Amino acid sequence: MARILTGIQSSGRPHLGNILGAIKPAIELSKNPQNESFFFIADLHSLTTLKNGVERGEYVRAIAATWLAFGFDYKKNVFWRQSRVQEHTELNWYLNCFTPFPMLANATSFKDKSEKLSDVNAGLFTYPVLQAADILLYNANIIPVGKDQKQHLEMSKDIANRFNILAGEDILVLPEPKIDERIMTIPGLDGQKMSKSYHNYIDIFLPENELKKVTKKILSDSKQLEEPKDPNNDITFQLYSLVAKESDVETMRQNYLNGGYGYGHAKQALFECFLEVFAEPRRIFNYYMENTEELEGILVEGEAKAREIAQETIGKVRKVLGFSS
Amino acid sequence: MARILTGIQSSGRPHLGNILGAIKPAIELSKNPQNESFFFIADLHSLTTLKNGVERGEYVRAIAATWLAFGFDYKKNVFWRQSRVQEHTELNWYLNCFTPFPMLANATSFKDKSEKLSDVNAGLFTYPVLQAADILLYNANIIPVGKDQKQHLEMSKDIANRFNILAGEDILVLPEPKIDERIMTIPGLDGQKMSKSYHNYIDIFLPENELKKVTKKILSDSKQLEEPKDPNNDITFQLYSLVAKESDVETMRQNYLNGGYGYGHAKQALFECFLEVFAEPRRIFNYYMENTEELEGILVEGEAKAREIAQETIGKVRKVLGFSS
Repeated sequence: MARILTGIQSSGRPHLGNILGAIKPAIELSKNPQNESFFFIADLHSLTTLKNGVERGEYVRAIAATWLAFGFDYKKNVFWRQSRVQEHTELNWYLNCFTPFPMLANATSFKDKSEKLSDVNAGLFTYPVLQAADILLYNANIIPVGKDQKQHLEMSKDIANRFNILAGEDILVLPEPKIDERIMTIPGLDGQKMSKSYHNYIDIFLPENELKKVTKKILSDSKQLEEPKDPNNDITFQLYSLVAKESDVETMRQNYLNGGYGYGHAKQALFECFLEVFAEPRRIFNYYMENTEELEGILVEGEAKAREIAQETIGKVRKVLGFSS
Repeated sequence: MARILTGIQSSGRPHLGNILGAIKPAIELSKNPQNESFFFIADLHSLTTLKNGVERGEYVRAIAATWLAFGFDYKKNVFWRQSRVQEHTELNWYLNCFTPFPMLANATSFKDKSEKLSDVNAGLFTYPVLQAADILLYNANIIPVGKDQKQHLEMSKDIANRFNILAGEDILVLPEPKIDERIMTIPGLDGQKMSKSYHNYIDIFLPENELKKVTKKILSDSKQLEEPKDPNNDITFQLYSLVAKESDVETMRQNYLNGGYGYGHAKQALFECFLEVFAEPRRIFNYYMENTEELEGILVEGEAKAREIAQETIGKVRKVLGFSS
């Protein structure tokens, strides 16, 4: 039985790139009966960059609703908001005291920002330590991450190891990063990687007319309706092939190659495909965004489960450090 | 009504220097009916330097027992262990995200250590932020500190102010440092300031024979028994004048000036004075060190009071930041 832990930053509403690239694969993984999945909304981490509380609340609900919309089984797995389990920040402090300053100062994520140090807050500087606390509280074995997160995972291992040496026993489970080499990069409206920071994302939970407008903004070349088109170099086709049925993708490919089929047609097909493929997730998402008390209840239930495990770990840590009676 | 907050690091057993220089004056202050005193044992801070859990537990008990031994009224005031109120580390994280990296990097306490960065852990680097959390959780108005702590207090004010600006209202009370200009410096065995790190301290709670041995170690010059001696340049006399009755001090002064009175006599008088003056504190201290369950009960009672106030503050902070439902 592997315990897989994934945290999702709550710095925005999940978009198509997040959903296809991270959320759906993670949910697939969680369906394997051999796995036990721990998903948390990393709202404490989001404070390093996002200060607006109203937006944070909205994003947290949207993330929770998205996971549920794509079929995450919160009864079988564990699902919670990081901020509601106080042991995260408590362990964070303990681990701070086992983290050499140079380890953080040498982190690539910090060095990248060291040109403008006045913009870096102490939360951003120490966030690999909070990340270590997130992982180590739950004795997680496997942490699926992108390559950019590998260094932080190594730091978690290093910090855990320093603690265990002091303790003289293996209190903290050393986590293993599972680097996903074939992370699917989803193109955004302009063909770059879809990302909130590039403002090129598609929010599939938008009302129909807005979703249609966004879909029409996908970049295409200036070929005329009647000309044959190259499906392999067109963003609309790429997106369509990621969501539509294989036979429909084949039909669109032929339409592109044959000519007499404009980008407007393709975008309309993509929009209709969104509505069809995501009909159920859109319904569930909207349901939870309107029934926030029910959503809250699900999270509170998950938090009780998470807290129980976290308290067991923190109890051992406190004992070693002389913080228990 | 002023709320006075004092934290005591638990990195050792309190010695005579701590008692005369800090603990007794703080207890005097707490007896003023106009004041409400908040005393906490800063055991989380001690983790930045002290890793041994058994020692920490011992020191925490010794500190609590010392405060009680010198008459601190834990019923009227608030008395707790920092580590038992999780809101300290929670607020610490929030405030981290409002603390610019350069503010910490420019702290004198950090610069002093920057020669040996590998010895500095992230806890030591960020401890002014935890200190800010300690203060701001309790809406403390007055923080009596030595001059060396002034910069940290200014940081607390600055961090609170940044938070209040974001909040658009004065959620956190800006604390005022009360710099004690006439901080009494208690000489140690060698005449330097009495300090754990100089290994020149007198632990007045030692068993009689050990206390006697330590007292005999006080440095003196090589004047012979019969020679007159200078009371103003002798450590034994200085310590005696800090603890003995005025008339007894006068008698010893005359003995010094007259000659025929050796340093051995003076040390014996000092030792006997310790036993007499500290008879009741020694009894109470030993009582609590033996009856640790009763001590624990007193701390737990204080922690419930502290937690109630801390939770009220953290509730407001969470609301502003979007961490409440």
